[in-house]
Amino acid sequence: MKICFIGSCGHSHKAFREMQKCPDALFVGAAPGSEHESPEDLESYDIKIYDSYRRMIEETQPDVAVVSPVFGLTGQIVKYCAERKIDVFCEKPVASDLSELEALEKTVKESGIHFSAMHFLRFAPSFYAAGKLVRDGGIGQIKLVNAQKSYKYGTRPHWYTDRSLYTGTIPWVGIHAIDWIYYFTRKRFLTIDALHFGNPEMAALCQFELEDNVIASVNVDYYRPVTASTHGDDRIRVVGTEGVIEVFSDRYVLINKDGETVNYPTEAPMLACDYLFGREEITAEEIFMLTKVALSARESADRKQKIRID
Amino acid sequence: MKICFIGSCGHSHKAFREMQKCPDALFVGAAPGSEHESPEDLESYDIKIYDSYRRMIEETQPDVAVVSPVFGLTGQIVKYCAERKIDVFCEKPVASDLSELEALEKTVKESGIHFSAMHFLRFAPSFYAAGKLVRDGGIGQIKLVNAQKSYKYGTRPHWYTDRSLYTGTIPWVGIHAIDWIYYFTRKRFLTIDALHFGNPEMAALCQFELEDNVIASVNVDYYRPVTASTHGDDRIRVVGTEGVIEVFSDRYVLINKDGETVNYPTEAPMLACDYLFGREEITAEEIFMLTKVALSARESADRKQKIRID
Repeated sequence: MKICFIGSCGHSHKAFREMQKCPDALFVGAAPGSEHESPEDLESYDIKIYDSYRRMIEETQPDVAVVSPVFGLTGQIVKYCAERKIDVFCEKPVASDLSELEALEKTVKESGIHFSAMHFLRFAPSFYAAGKLVRDGGIGQIKLVNAQKSYKYGTRPHWYTDRSLYTGTIPWVGIHAIDWIYYFTRKRFLTIDALHFGNPEMAALCQFELEDNVIASVNVDYYRPVTASTHGDDRIRVVGTEGVIEVFSDRYVLINKDGETVNYPTEAPMLACDYLFGREEITAEEIFMLTKVALSARESADRKQKIRID
Repeated sequence: MKICFIGSCGHSHKAFREMQKCPDALFVGAAPGSEHESPEDLESYDIKIYDSYRRMIEETQPDVAVVSPVFGLTGQIVKYCAERKIDVFCEKPVASDLSELEALEKTVKESGIHFSAMHFLRFAPSFYAAGKLVRDGGIGQIKLVNAQKSYKYGTRPHWYTDRSLYTGTIPWVGIHAIDWIYYFTRKRFLTIDALHFGNPEMAALCQFELEDNVIASVNVDYYRPVTASTHGDDRIRVVGTEGVIEVFSDRYVLINKDGETVNYPTEAPMLACDYLFGREEITAEEIFMLTKVALSARESADRKQKIRID
């Protein structure tokens, strides 16, 4: 299975490391997604470097492209690959605005390619295990969900202040929290109201009405102090009729009729590796839906208006 | 100083216990606020019981009335007292809807009475100390706030399902979280979007835009399992440009440039006692504003519409 890498932004190196564990994987090349990337970033792949992904594709005829350019360009490059029937494993958000997303979904579906995206955080072991427990009825009927992403800002590329290249903090970071909400509840998103401030948006809030009278919120920020013990403070708290579960980066705390327990799961599927094996841990349908919710939330925050999702 | 008690719902017994520490306090009587209360509840005051608060007021000519009836009747009884120039220390919410609130604010101001309300949770030692630290600049400029109220439902009176008597979960419980947001930030509330479900509302979410680009959220639920170690899981998390502080029921965790510290404050003013001494830990202006925000949030949730606060 011939695999090429387009771009080295985001989590493409995580995909690379996972795919190295797949015996059939043959890495045929890497190329920048655009002039916004520095060639040094590609060298760490330790595979043949091309300066043009178009030429790389032509020369190597890959089966799979791992697409991870400057975030705002993902959709264009996915489209380029889909039109050439190359399977795609790409960064999220898979499109930079709602109209690009709609066109891309159509292109991908018509192409028949195997398509997935780097929703890696659903497969962080604590979230993955807790989500399974909740979906299996472990806290009764779900009523309320709060999800959190808090990161250190650190040093980030200059293009984070260019919306057309960065896409925004809700689509780039908040989408993971939106993904968790869906993964835990499996409920449709009905309405969104969101707020964000800064460039890049340094803090954001989203509030969702889901089907079956479930309500959910997301808070995102880039203000985690440099002194904090971990890069991120990821959380989800799910309140049900029979218990409350709260997931932190490395553990979940469950309170139910039997009392309180703390669990540190360590096992979860490897998304990128499983993708190569043809397993669908997350479907293309889900990815397009989650991207739509995230981009709609960004629009809600931009317009400061509540939005109904159709 | 002659003090009477009207009603025994809510936190009137906490007010009673605090006021007992005030040497000038003379407890002249207690009476139900309405037929919805059971006489046994009044007996625990261990003072003379009247069956009518009107007759009690006429006979005892009190200086202060502690007003804590079925929640929806608070405003009417406060009005009755204010019109007789009796100082009032009452339960929150101080009014049951926005029009009653507007009229009550006018009546109270014109009466010149000393007026305060049972926003006790601002004075929970961990919240009080953390709020002071944040207002003194301990985490830089505030950007994002999340506040939580989670309670066991336990056994509650039948009138919790009657909106006209209960007022609703956002005005009754959520108002404490709204109070914290204001106490920590001192920012004006500009817009509200809220959601709630159930009768009584068993879960609620509020999202606020505050002035100076500060964003805030509240989550409330009554689903805390009976097995949990405490009745409530109260929290506020405040994210600033120079640090993050998170308050739990009994402690606060601060992460700033010096690292992470956990603190267990034990000291805070006694609101009811200080009220008798004429000290203003919370002003009447603040109480009316906070009640307006809470009642507006309930309206937003009822209508499922975002509301601008004028």
